[in-house]
Amino acid sequence: GGGEVGKEPESENILREFKTSNVLSDSAREKNIFIHGKLADQEAVVILEKTPIREDTLAELFSGSRLKLEMKNDIYSTYRLQAPPQLNEIKTTVVCPATEKHVKKYQRQESFLVEETGEDYQSITLPYIQKQSFSVQWVYNILEKKAEADRIVYEDPDPKVGFVLLPDFKWDQKQVDDLYLIAIAHQRDIRSLRDLTSEHLPLLQNIFQKGKEAILERYKLPASKLRVYLHYQPSYYHLHVHFTKLGYEAPGCGVERAHLLADVIQNLQSDRQYYKSRTLYFPLRADDGLLSKFKETGRL
Amino acid sequence: GGGEVGKEPESENILREFKTSNVLSDSAREKNIFIHGKLADQEAVVILEKTPIREDTLAELFSGSRLKLEMKNDIYSTYRLQAPPQLNEIKTTVVCPATEKHVKKYQRQESFLVEETGEDYQSITLPYIQKQSFSVQWVYNILEKKAEADRIVYEDPDPKVGFVLLPDFKWDQKQVDDLYLIAIAHQRDIRSLRDLTSEHLPLLQNIFQKGKEAILERYKLPASKLRVYLHYQPSYYHLHVHFTKLGYEAPGCGVERAHLLADVIQNLQSDRQYYKSRTLYFPLRADDGLLSKFKETGRL
Repeated sequence: GGGEVGKEPESENILREFKTSNVLSDSAREKNIFIHGKLADQEAVVILEKTPIREDTLAELFSGSRLKLEMKNDIYSTYRLQAPPQLNEIKTTVVCPATEKHVKKYQRQESFLVEETGEDYQSITLPYIQKQSFSVQWVYNILEKKAEADRIVYEDPDPKVGFVLLPDFKWDQKQVDDLYLIAIAHQRDIRSLRDLTSEHLPLLQNIFQKGKEAILERYKLPASKLRVYLHYQPSYYHLHVHFTKLGYEAPGCGVERAHLLADVIQNLQSDRQYYKSRTLYFPLRADDGLLSKFKETGRL
Repeated sequence: GGGEVGKEPESENILREFKTSNVLSDSAREKNIFIHGKLADQEAVVILEKTPIREDTLAELFSGSRLKLEMKNDIYSTYRLQAPPQLNEIKTTVVCPATEKHVKKYQRQESFLVEETGEDYQSITLPYIQKQSFSVQWVYNILEKKAEADRIVYEDPDPKVGFVLLPDFKWDQKQVDDLYLIAIAHQRDIRSLRDLTSEHLPLLQNIFQKGKEAILERYKLPASKLRVYLHYQPSYYHLHVHFTKLGYEAPGCGVERAHLLADVIQNLQSDRQYYKSRTLYFPLRADDGLLSKFKETGRL
């Protein structure tokens, strides 16, 4: 946010002490890198990602940068442009202390498509989720305003159909081109798509409707420019809905993992037990414990 | 590269004189932007793209940058990192003088999500498709071996359930990382998902099963590494199925356009008229004639 520029929080550069162990993954296309290492004797994961180029800084960028010629051929020429640092920031995320699970999460891995029947969910997936008892304390911190309260874009406080809408970590909020928000339900007993029945229709419709309205209000983006969906499997087992800009190829928006909220609502309207009985398909990474369970039971 | 730093070719900053007319397109994900404007009274296109983050510069990046705290929650914190300019260059391409053709090439079209009920299909989409009478002669050429016969990977010649499997144009077949094949049905009267009923289950199951087998045989890629889906709207109105490698983010594999063949089969098994009655969602580009039809009828 804005405010008194002179008082911007200049942090001590904690990364000066960061000791890289290994690169977990990187993307030349997306200009990011995931690094595992140590920060003052604690395990840490550092994620760097270059920021999108903003139209509103172009004039300053063109006038304030140095250009170094690389190649010239006919009407085409290429340069390396060295920009003022404040116009060319790198988004940096630090996870510290990081658990083995964090390290695994960011490690590049092959994926396999898993076929999960309703029975597989009951006999393989659900016991696995329960045994892991993944912490969603950070989600409760948000819902209880113990963290990130200033980032909340919209809230409906109703305990049954209410939710909190806030920007996803991946979005730097500098431009709407890669808009990415998450709606987190106040209800705490819905793990995923598999727990949804027609009794949750009021909640889902409320998130859909009020989420779209809040995004139109705040970001001037109409519903026809939005992709609204759930993940299955989700990355944490507390009901949440993804709102991303149509045309932005957000990670995880592929048909193998994403389920349009509009489809979910329709499916529950025509069959209240749709997500209990259906076979669902999703990718799992090679090192995912759940994949081992499916392999053990001969389901892959 | 290294060498005598003092003698690096410092170019006059020609971009200082660049006058932006408009942004043709940009990608927040890929961190690039295509700009149309004028350079000393000549039409020009300038392309900026941030460079990938290099592992071999990380130590220097961590020690030589400034960090500004954005957010802290539990074990997660995010910062803006301001790097030394020479470690964080922007690749710059200048096309000058640029023709109208260059400008069009880089111009992006916005997309809008359309909501199409079963009735909308009958009253808006179907008449539009019929009036356009898009030619699929090139498809018939393939099915009749008048073209691309040498590219066929597999064929089941049965007129009811048969199909031809061949590489998509987008795939150069040099590596399986971006494997992309298309199965084209021999049946000629199925325009799209909307025409499918349970009577087509044998055809769909045959394409699914034999397509997977042929890909395993030829490319050693098992079904668990494949994403098999239909597009709606398709780019041509003759039934075809996409086979792409899981993990390869093929264009058009997003949840807003792709429908997993396994889901299509399940849906038709539980409701033979599923795709006649359902509301379907899909993106249309701003210049698509069908979008105008939806706008004219007030459905957008």
